Amino acid sequence: MTEFNTNMLNQTDKGAEILCIGTELLLGNILNGNAKWLAEELAFFGIPHYRQVVVGDNKKRLIEAFLEASNRSRFLITTGGLGPTQDDITVESLAEAFESELTEDETSWELIKAKLDSKNLSSPTIERKQALVPAGAEVIHNKSGTAPGIIWTPQSNFTIITLPGVPSEMRDMWKDSAAKLLYSNIQKKEVISSKILRFSGISESTIAKKVSDLIQLDNPTVAPYASLGDVKLRITARSSSKEDSHQLIDPIIEEIESRIGSFCYGKDEDSLASVTLALLNKRSETIAVAESCTGGQLSSALTSIPGASKTFIGGSIVYANEAKETLLGVPKKLIEEFGAVSKEVVIAMAKGIKKNLQSDWAIAISGVAGPDGGTDKKPVGSVYLGIIGPQDCEAILEDFGKYRSRQAIQTLSVISSLDRLRILLLSRS
Amino acid sequence: MTEFNTNMLNQTDKGAEILCIGTELLLGNILNGNAKWLAEELAFFGIPHYRQVVVGDNKKRLIEAFLEASNRSRFLITTGGLGPTQDDITVESLAEAFESELTEDETSWELIKAKLDSKNLSSPTIERKQALVPAGAEVIHNKSGTAPGIIWTPQSNFTIITLPGVPSEMRDMWKDSAAKLLYSNIQKKEVISSKILRFSGISESTIAKKVSDLIQLDNPTVAPYASLGDVKLRITARSSSKEDSHQLIDPIIEEIESRIGSFCYGKDEDSLASVTLALLNKRSETIAVAESCTGGQLSSALTSIPGASKTFIGGSIVYANEAKETLLGVPKKLIEEFGAVSKEVVIAMAKGIKKNLQSDWAIAISGVAGPDGGTDKKPVGSVYLGIIGPQDCEAILEDFGKYRSRQAIQTLSVISSLDRLRILLLSRS
Repeated sequence: MTEFNTNMLNQTDKGAEILCIGTELLLGNILNGNAKWLAEELAFFGIPHYRQVVVGDNKKRLIEAFLEASNRSRFLITTGGLGPTQDDITVESLAEAFESELTEDETSWELIKAKLDSKNLSSPTIERKQALVPAGAEVIHNKSGTAPGIIWTPQSNFTIITLPGVPSEMRDMWKDSAAKLLYSNIQKKEVISSKILRFSGISESTIAKKVSDLIQLDNPTVAPYASLGDVKLRITARSSSKEDSHQLIDPIIEEIESRIGSFCYGKDEDSLASVTLALLNKRSETIAVAESCTGGQLSSALTSIPGASKTFIGGSIVYANEAKETLLGVPKKLIEEFGAVSKEVVIAMAKGIKKNLQSDWAIAISGVAGPDGGTDKKPVGSVYLGIIGPQDCEAILEDFGKYRSRQAIQTLSVISSLDRLRILLLSRS
Repeated sequence: MTEFNTNMLNQTDKGAEILCIGTELLLGNILNGNAKWLAEELAFFGIPHYRQVVVGDNKKRLIEAFLEASNRSRFLITTGGLGPTQDDITVESLAEAFESELTEDETSWELIKAKLDSKNLSSPTIERKQALVPAGAEVIHNKSGTAPGIIWTPQSNFTIITLPGVPSEMRDMWKDSAAKLLYSNIQKKEVISSKILRFSGISESTIAKKVSDLIQLDNPTVAPYASLGDVKLRITARSSSKEDSHQLIDPIIEEIESRIGSFCYGKDEDSLASVTLALLNKRSETIAVAESCTGGQLSSALTSIPGASKTFIGGSIVYANEAKETLLGVPKKLIEEFGAVSKEVVIAMAKGIKKNLQSDWAIAISGVAGPDGGTDKKPVGSVYLGIIGPQDCEAILEDFGKYRSRQAIQTLSVISSLDRLRILLLSRS
């Protein structure tokens, strides 16, 4: 039977490798959700995972990938290429790579026939090859599809687990077989736990400077990641139990918060929209928005949060100047005198929607998202954010940079306005 | 239409390999969207692409991956590990792998300093390492972030292109540099040209059946791709000149259009929003929107198109019922009698915004996006779309399915409403 404990993995430091097989991945037709899901499972089981590979349904390249993995890793988990058609060649390529014979697994063939009968399919000849497995391999049966998987150790210290490419089948079979094996065979339980802290209004490099000593740590590790307008720190601990992991992680989180806590808007799955809505909800206050250059993206961010309707009433998209006048009552002469992208207009917009919807708070955004419409005084990337609350009324001019794309300027405007409101709400509580 | 010469690639049959660098990917924290996007670009350029690899920010494993790729591929495209922090080691690992010295690129350092100055950040010392490049490498400047990339040929017939992990920066830099380099490499006269036809309201499998004979062709090839609510056919020809490619592609496009042309909404970079706005613009007509369950996503789709302001006036986000009454004048008794998700209310919403903004057309959307709020009569996924024009007034009930995510139901609502308006506009012209 298959040996499966992380103790040995730690000794060999070889870990598990994921190989996703499918030409559609190489054509960029689909996102590799299987790799992400399996990687998360491996992290959960505390199995070191150092490499993911994608290759197409090509025998030569498959065999190369198998042999490379056998020199590098303790486990190889494959997805895809188990179907009945000519281009499904994972199993035959495996047999060839490790010089094994294929034999028919009787139970698999009975199950395949039963499944095909139940769907009233005729002459299931091409499916028969799915019952072929290398000698000595253990079969993972497939409850929903016809493609079985295998768990096979063709050479010492190298075990292959094949799973189908259909995500639901892959997940069920992993849980039914491979994951159970992992549970039952783990002797030294090592668990990886991870916590994310999310930041806004501060750059990745500034954060990295402030926690440079923590980034040197071995356990837990602290790693910064950045995406547009958003930085996060991931704190990851290896320990013998979830509880012990928390005891490693919690003091580090406290330390980070004491250094840069004011920029930290949330944890794990939080977003600026969810956090801001939660702060408003706690105060039983409501919000409305008025958007020009962001054209609905702030509203979209708020309504993407399930249950937003308790707090977010609605808003106006006032893309054209006449809409600013008609829907929000912004005086025409204000737009003529100061321009649509101005402190005066953005405040009038916020006041207008707050009054119309009788909300407690309102955010208004008006700026030059480009690519056209920039001037010397107000180049592309200039965005006014207006925020009005029970006691507050402020307008901020942001300069997101004229080289940024329209989409980036819109995204940064949304992030910045939510973050500003969040900070105001915190200062008022 | 894009042309690219694959002469050199055809000779070596080595193709391009994608290496995504980031511990985050190995922890299963994020989907590898960069690999998908780059794979699609490579397919678009007709560059053979046989392997994708993911490794973490670990020098030993990075160097292994670089050297393996150098034996296997003509091009290595990397993403990630270009930031200023300690765990960003892509460039130094590259230099070590190919035994090259790192030297500071003056222009890069000036640009980094300028970017940091413009944000009033102090002592940008840790960013300085981002200006280091291997001797002989060409620098790809980064317009929005501080991380530059490189194009470097450390040994004959092996070129490395490094890009940052932030998707927006990665895409911009690919388009500005790498994609242009691939164009300019043209030596021999073999050119790959590609054209995309985009469809809505028809499934990938129905399209595939209707053009099954064309999908068998060798030159040009016809390949279907599907994403949520959107199907495309890519027609790709190899030929000795641009003109010859067109002569291969054009008859196929005509044939496809004669079979399924009514579902084809556009070509290449078109979107349903851009096509619908163009149809309105041609008629010198304007549009306004009223959104409930989509919460601003229809407005966002329209305002994502540069120059939308000529045609799109604005709209109301009426997420709460009181907003439907206040902003759009939907009678309270209509909501009480028929419910907010009803034909009657969605038409009243469309009428309300059309009147408020004096637009020629209006779209209104009200539905149950979930995950909560579904009933037996109106389960999650039920969405009413209302469209009003100079001569039209119609409401459609869509059932997108109760098992779909909130995000998917919102996206499909936007797509379906734009497609319905597009068809109405075509029937009126």
